[in-house]
Amino acid sequence: MGAENQQERLDKKWVVGFVDGEGCFHVSVNKMDCMKLGWQVLPEFRIVQHERDESVLYRLKEVLDCGNVVVNHGDRKELRVRGIEDLNKIVKFFEAHELQTTKKDNFNLFAKVISMMNKGQHLTEHGLKEIAKIASLMNRQVRRKYLESSETIRQTRK
Amino acid sequence: MGAENQQERLDKKWVVGFVDGEGCFHVSVNKMDCMKLGWQVLPEFRIVQHERDESVLYRLKEVLDCGNVVVNHGDRKELRVRGIEDLNKIVKFFEAHELQTTKKDNFNLFAKVISMMNKGQHLTEHGLKEIAKIASLMNRQVRRKYLESSETIRQTRK
Repeated sequence: MGAENQQERLDKKWVVGFVDGEGCFHVSVNKMDCMKLGWQVLPEFRIVQHERDESVLYRLKEVLDCGNVVVNHGDRKELRVRGIEDLNKIVKFFEAHELQTTKKDNFNLFAKVISMMNKGQHLTEHGLKEIAKIASLMNRQVRRKYLESSETIRQTRK
Repeated sequence: MGAENQQERLDKKWVVGFVDGEGCFHVSVNKMDCMKLGWQVLPEFRIVQHERDESVLYRLKEVLDCGNVVVNHGDRKELRVRGIEDLNKIVKFFEAHELQTTKKDNFNLFAKVISMMNKGQHLTEHGLKEIAKIASLMNRQVRRKYLESSETIRQTRK
């Protein structure tokens, strides 16, 4: 880390404002044959910045107490939080410090998925379908793979 | 206004975080024959949002105590602040509440232009050239109209 740790700790309200602008709560449901149901639920929280602002990603990591700073694409970096334990920290943070834009609606759906995963519901067919529906309400495009796959359609016709 | 005024006043630190993500400090130098020197300096502060978050623009307007919410493009709205008196409020706000990303560098250049305009320096050839140089260091593309115009090049050869 180094230099970026010398800087003042970011204020939590600042973090919420920045995430209202730049943060992304995202759930994907991906085909993965090695999983019991053939699908993997992958929730993720991300903040992308140009590499010139990489240091602010480390400062965010410090306040949120989780995540890794990795390359996003080209000259863009991201703070990426995956894994249920760390995502529980994210949910707790934004439950305590309320988002102010409609990003809050996405967060609420995201928090619902995390809560279901805490109960292991993503490992049941019913829960997986429910999560796929919630994910399709969030960041629109990508997330319908599960719901629109012919396999899923076949299964639901059973 | 109406409903959006019912909401809680935005925290100033939140505003700084949001502007670090979404705000834009911008100075253009535009050809305008009716101006004494033939060029107009137009500094502007802007926050653009999808219309679904129009209400947050009104809440920002309330905290910053200036600006107008107008259509940006298509389904996007913006809080736009123009005019030296209101821009002085913006400069004062972000001098008191420090930006945390490299957007601060842009802000510092912006503040320098506003300070020069307060002294009327944009109305002198020397000041105008100085402002055009500063503007060219900010949001890169558009701002070089003045410095690259054949007219300006002719003048500086005098």
